[in-house]
Amino acid sequence: MSAEPANATADTNPEVDGHTYKRQKTAADAADPKLARRAKFEAVFEQIAKELLDYVRGEGMPDEAVSWFEKNLYHNTPGGKLNRGMSVVDTVEILKGRTLDEDEYVKAAILGWCVELLQAYFLVADDMMDQSVTRRGQPCWYRVPDVGNIAINDAFMLEAAIYHLLKKHFRSEKYYVDLLELFLETTFQTELGQLVDLITAPEDHVDLNKFSLEKHHLIVVYKTAFYSFYLPVALAMRVHGIDSKEAYDAALAILIPLGEYFQVQDDYLDCYGKPEHIGKIGTDILDNKCSWNVNTALRFATPEQRKVLDDNYGQKNSESEARVKAVFSEAPISIPERFEAYEKESYEKITGLIEAVDEEKSGLKKEVFTSFLGKVYKRSK
Amino acid sequence: MSAEPANATADTNPEVDGHTYKRQKTAADAADPKLARRAKFEAVFEQIAKELLDYVRGEGMPDEAVSWFEKNLYHNTPGGKLNRGMSVVDTVEILKGRTLDEDEYVKAAILGWCVELLQAYFLVADDMMDQSVTRRGQPCWYRVPDVGNIAINDAFMLEAAIYHLLKKHFRSEKYYVDLLELFLETTFQTELGQLVDLITAPEDHVDLNKFSLEKHHLIVVYKTAFYSFYLPVALAMRVHGIDSKEAYDAALAILIPLGEYFQVQDDYLDCYGKPEHIGKIGTDILDNKCSWNVNTALRFATPEQRKVLDDNYGQKNSESEARVKAVFSEAPISIPERFEAYEKESYEKITGLIEAVDEEKSGLKKEVFTSFLGKVYKRSK
Repeated sequence: MSAEPANATADTNPEVDGHTYKRQKTAADAADPKLARRAKFEAVFEQIAKELLDYVRGEGMPDEAVSWFEKNLYHNTPGGKLNRGMSVVDTVEILKGRTLDEDEYVKAAILGWCVELLQAYFLVADDMMDQSVTRRGQPCWYRVPDVGNIAINDAFMLEAAIYHLLKKHFRSEKYYVDLLELFLETTFQTELGQLVDLITAPEDHVDLNKFSLEKHHLIVVYKTAFYSFYLPVALAMRVHGIDSKEAYDAALAILIPLGEYFQVQDDYLDCYGKPEHIGKIGTDILDNKCSWNVNTALRFATPEQRKVLDDNYGQKNSESEARVKAVFSEAPISIPERFEAYEKESYEKITGLIEAVDEEKSGLKKEVFTSFLGKVYKRSK
Repeated sequence: MSAEPANATADTNPEVDGHTYKRQKTAADAADPKLARRAKFEAVFEQIAKELLDYVRGEGMPDEAVSWFEKNLYHNTPGGKLNRGMSVVDTVEILKGRTLDEDEYVKAAILGWCVELLQAYFLVADDMMDQSVTRRGQPCWYRVPDVGNIAINDAFMLEAAIYHLLKKHFRSEKYYVDLLELFLETTFQTELGQLVDLITAPEDHVDLNKFSLEKHHLIVVYKTAFYSFYLPVALAMRVHGIDSKEAYDAALAILIPLGEYFQVQDDYLDCYGKPEHIGKIGTDILDNKCSWNVNTALRFATPEQRKVLDDNYGQKNSESEARVKAVFSEAPISIPERFEAYEKESYEKITGLIEAVDEEKSGLKKEVFTSFLGKVYKRSK
């Protein structure tokens, strides 16, 4: 879910001040069911943005601050694929086994947008830490004129928005404190994953001795899987009234490997996916990323291949990148074959875990997980 | 409370890796009651740091990540005056009207350290946004070798630590959710204040038309007063079992003006305090700060004085600074006289509010507020 198609923001509308942050609805949204689903979800964002801005205005903040926060919210929160957010709604629907009424839809969608706000908070900060240039086809927030390092406080405010919305909409629910804890704990886990990633793979200091598949596992699980896979489902389970610890443990046991499998695909596609499919040109090799590809390569490399990797991985030139790519595909490293085997193995493992779910006892539905797996298995983008 | 005496970290111990982050206890700590009080509070930090590191280690994080987090915690959390944190303990003690037993002390001190962690989170970020050089006599965290922009994620982790500690120690208390909300709402308020400050007074673009005493009021209340004055007292009130909304409103009505008065003093002392008292050389004029001094000056300046301010405020040279200082003291601006009047007026207003507290009805004690006021009134540092 970290790969964002280049056309994800094709329907954004450049504002007069040069920021592209307000989405433009088109007639196509209603015609195509997929676009209609997205448009319905996006309409809830308009509601929560208004609530947040009303709060800030109500606290007596000057117009300039209100409009700054508005730009921050719109630039950073919508505009991605919204998979994480919409999966909260989908999961509530599967658990209930029926279409949601308006009130149920809005509540689930607000939680979905809280997941997207959490992601926005991480991405604004990650882009600053990685010194990235663009995100979702727009300049990264900290690179927008006049923003700069103020983006740090803006990231904080995206996070704060989550808890304001949770209080406003869920304060009277008996699971309110569970929602707070879910967000707070997942945030800490993601930050732990980010820390390990940052100190393992600094862009400016290549040292492949720091890498390992074990560390890759840890980074992927903490930095991505908890908030992208477990969090949306666990939120939906809370809304649906599931509260046995066993049910959450069962969901976790499936969603963490599923999230890991998704991220391994992402890493694989960065090198082997078609740019026209994945919507970007992969840069993991140039950026010294601790990816599944390089960790697998390190495990199986001959001493000669290892030397090629040491000399070329993370070097900012296309010759080095090409040398690394060549070694990745060579035996005994053979990334494509190993990825195929990994994919098959993961699929079988996850399918087995899903089959073992006791729907009666847990209140869960296997379909929650099969629908995720269906979206992820053998994707090319 | 933003002025930190230069000697606050005189007893730190340089570690082998060059970071000064572990405090060294000295025999003097036990002899002097003030130092003993501080040493007792600091001992609780050792406990919570251990708990946090045990958690991170228990999640399977590599040693390098655990030790990074340890340095982050120790570099950024202790080492200041600890007024905010210790005032939680003091306030619980006043409310109970007796010395706390060991268990009560530790619980109150943990909340105090959570306030200090919140402050650490803000300061790590503020120093990056302001491009500050030193903090509490040490390099700012982002300037420590190898840290750089990773400090953003480190700030996040200081915040996450708060909620981990609250869950660990307060999960079973009926006021647990109130603690969560107090921290979360205060965080949002502080970030709002920081946003207004950042866009009103950017260091690199001086425009005194953006300044006003009304904006100064808003910045001070949101950026400082809520978390430094209201939060510690409100936490102590929760621990003591006070839950009437009126009691919190009464505390707020006193502590917000008290916090504002404190910050106005801070601004005044930046220009008029003795460096040997305040422990630093004031740089508000050089840094284009939206201070009480400049806002008061703008309100009363003659057109000629206004021109001097426009031409010299926020200019990075000591001649400009000297010109601004001269104008500040000239009639009709006369900052020292106006400050004296402001101080008298604030003292009387706050004293009146304290006198109006109904101890019986609210469960509050006037002494909670008089003890704060006593520490703040006519301070020279």
